[in-house]
Amino acid sequence: MHPVQLILKKRNGEKHTPAEIRFLIQELTAGRLENYQLAAWLMAVWFRGMDYEETDVLTQAMIESGDQVDLSSIDGVKVDKHSTGGVGDGTTLVIAPIVAAAGGRVAKMSGRGLGHTGGTLDKLESIPGMRVDLTQQQFLDQVRQIGLAIISQTGKLVPADGQMYALRDVTGTVDSIPLIAASVMSKKIACGADAIVLDVKFGHGAFMKSLDDARKLAETMVAIGRLRDRQVRAALTSMEEPLGNQIGNALEVDEALRILRGERKGTALETVAYELSSHLLCMSHPGLSLETARVQVQQLVDSGQALDKLGQLLEAQGGDRRICEEPERLPQAQQKIGFNSPSDGFVGSIAAETIGTAAMWLGAGRRTKSDSIDPAVGIVLHVEKGRPVKKGERMATLHVNDQTHLAAAEKLLSHAFLIQAEKPEAQPLIREMIGV
Amino acid sequence: MHPVQLILKKRNGEKHTPAEIRFLIQELTAGRLENYQLAAWLMAVWFRGMDYEETDVLTQAMIESGDQVDLSSIDGVKVDKHSTGGVGDGTTLVIAPIVAAAGGRVAKMSGRGLGHTGGTLDKLESIPGMRVDLTQQQFLDQVRQIGLAIISQTGKLVPADGQMYALRDVTGTVDSIPLIAASVMSKKIACGADAIVLDVKFGHGAFMKSLDDARKLAETMVAIGRLRDRQVRAALTSMEEPLGNQIGNALEVDEALRILRGERKGTALETVAYELSSHLLCMSHPGLSLETARVQVQQLVDSGQALDKLGQLLEAQGGDRRICEEPERLPQAQQKIGFNSPSDGFVGSIAAETIGTAAMWLGAGRRTKSDSIDPAVGIVLHVEKGRPVKKGERMATLHVNDQTHLAAAEKLLSHAFLIQAEKPEAQPLIREMIGV
Repeated sequence: MHPVQLILKKRNGEKHTPAEIRFLIQELTAGRLENYQLAAWLMAVWFRGMDYEETDVLTQAMIESGDQVDLSSIDGVKVDKHSTGGVGDGTTLVIAPIVAAAGGRVAKMSGRGLGHTGGTLDKLESIPGMRVDLTQQQFLDQVRQIGLAIISQTGKLVPADGQMYALRDVTGTVDSIPLIAASVMSKKIACGADAIVLDVKFGHGAFMKSLDDARKLAETMVAIGRLRDRQVRAALTSMEEPLGNQIGNALEVDEALRILRGERKGTALETVAYELSSHLLCMSHPGLSLETARVQVQQLVDSGQALDKLGQLLEAQGGDRRICEEPERLPQAQQKIGFNSPSDGFVGSIAAETIGTAAMWLGAGRRTKSDSIDPAVGIVLHVEKGRPVKKGERMATLHVNDQTHLAAAEKLLSHAFLIQAEKPEAQPLIREMIGV
Repeated sequence: MHPVQLILKKRNGEKHTPAEIRFLIQELTAGRLENYQLAAWLMAVWFRGMDYEETDVLTQAMIESGDQVDLSSIDGVKVDKHSTGGVGDGTTLVIAPIVAAAGGRVAKMSGRGLGHTGGTLDKLESIPGMRVDLTQQQFLDQVRQIGLAIISQTGKLVPADGQMYALRDVTGTVDSIPLIAASVMSKKIACGADAIVLDVKFGHGAFMKSLDDARKLAETMVAIGRLRDRQVRAALTSMEEPLGNQIGNALEVDEALRILRGERKGTALETVAYELSSHLLCMSHPGLSLETARVQVQQLVDSGQALDKLGQLLEAQGGDRRICEEPERLPQAQQKIGFNSPSDGFVGSIAAETIGTAAMWLGAGRRTKSDSIDPAVGIVLHVEKGRPVKKGERMATLHVNDQTHLAAAEKLLSHAFLIQAEKPEAQPLIREMIGV
């Protein structure tokens, strides 16, 4: 078998045998595959795609490139959650405590990676004292004790994904449905989850630009889950505007706390987090109806049990659980700078990616791997799509420490809001659920 | 400008600006372009193609990556000839002396490269004493004196093509029409030719599998020639069977000599070589009709003037011109081994590439750049498509020195000939001429 033959085969629209896909991943992991050959193959895959069987074999080969987490010593259904990117998406910090409070088992490993704001790990680390570097044994013990642990993914899990993603990022081959599906599912399966809920974003700024593509991606991941005996459900959610109103690491922790304290009723983030939590409850408890699960989620929040579970998580991992009631203990930015509407009208749209990039320039996210994150900074939105605004009315507040790139961030914000004469049509955030 | 943006642009089917293409080639030549990014871009080009304008800019940028030959000190129309690969294709050794004998100016630089048999240079070097490493001044002087010189292309001509071709070869991106067109035309134009005749092969074993693709390639090269003020004509010739009957370096020189001595009347190689020569005569002499040119070509051969011109070429470059009359002075293989028909019938087809590969295993061509060539070895065919054969009748003779891979070559030969009950339909070798 020779890489050129496999490139030609995929390029010409033929289907790979399982042995061919395993060969490529083994050569990659062993450092024997030339980057330029992998790049050509990835581009051929971008154009030709892969069917479910090929994608499943790729997923499995990627899993086998590294270690796998064994959660079999933990009773019950182990659940996990993944979002395919998003701006102001702190759903994990809401969903994980709700599901654990309902008796679910949330053994979650997260990566860092690049992004507009940090990943879940960066958000957690904005909490004073919080540690994400537990040993495997501490991790398992904690899930057994309180039903919930969130730690840093080791480099030994799915190393082939890291290598492949680094190359996709610089060769224009990120937004390929089978490659995204294999990347996501290999990590989720290697982490040992039995039941996975996925939040697949679509729209401007998301990998998937259209609802159709998001549906294809979701269907592919659900299919791979089935082939690997995992329960998978996927929500298709619009990413036309940021999911949460607070973008930035400590700011997103603060918003999650507000939801768990019941202070953000009816917001987009609350709606999506509750719905995904309800599906995870259904997957954790066979026979539970979605309607009952929804009621249960509301009760877990209203009773304070979900917030208490988050407090247990913080305490178990060294974090200051007093933030649950005293969010001002989270890092605060030195300056708060208003951003006002340039005209009267309705908020027609808020470009999620542009807002995210603005937050990144303030220091909330990483532009390169070596960048450090400022946990305190970010952007708070005071309006949402459809809201009427007056000229000069404050639409957002920038939380700033370092003013170096403030002008760039403000310029981006001025492009992010579309103010229009007519009220835009409201659309549901979750358009579809796949795999239910 | 960043390579990833250009990859994405081409991948998404957009057209490059001239500045973008020049940027890529400049970065490549400066060693700043990562091979994996070039590989991804090449694959995107394979799928999306490039229009004439993009291909022309690519050609020009490749030319500007290195030196250009200045033939302006030579009077008259400087002509060149190129074949897009082929098996047993010694047409240059026939065409160049005919055209020079007619007063044309043939200033030809050839490359080596990989292949079933060697390139024109390897064929010339099978002639005792022959040198192909003239200085630029010697080269120009010789063309002025005898109208003909064939030398080795320097590495400084179109270095971007060498770099790009090496990568295309290992990334499954060789058979892309705009990339082939830019590769061929950049070299021809950098070598200073005013008028170029191209032989574009199609069929099994050629880069272009279909007549349609060959026509597209030819039309692209003719269009680029026009944009660069060059006369270009292209023949589309079938490569279903080897063009010549003798495959191997000295064997192909021998066949060219036989044609110039008038001993191979009506053969495929003679037919194609005469026709391409006639077109070059028309391009060299404005107003000359193709019919008159054809008559003139025949007279140049019949009168011995073409053979004498080849003798002058050999003499000028240190070669033993006695081979013109005494071809046994060419290197001879130690062993001649017959290959016989397994059954009665008609020769339905002779797979050119398979024959070429068999010759390569005998030592006539290079498998890797570092392989050396044995000038004496190869294969002589005694039958052509459509010929009736009897079981046991000799169809080919293997000219062998080293028996190491003899069995492999014989096995390939046994697959190369299709013997069938019915006489196959005859088809003209040159299917179309483009650019006339």
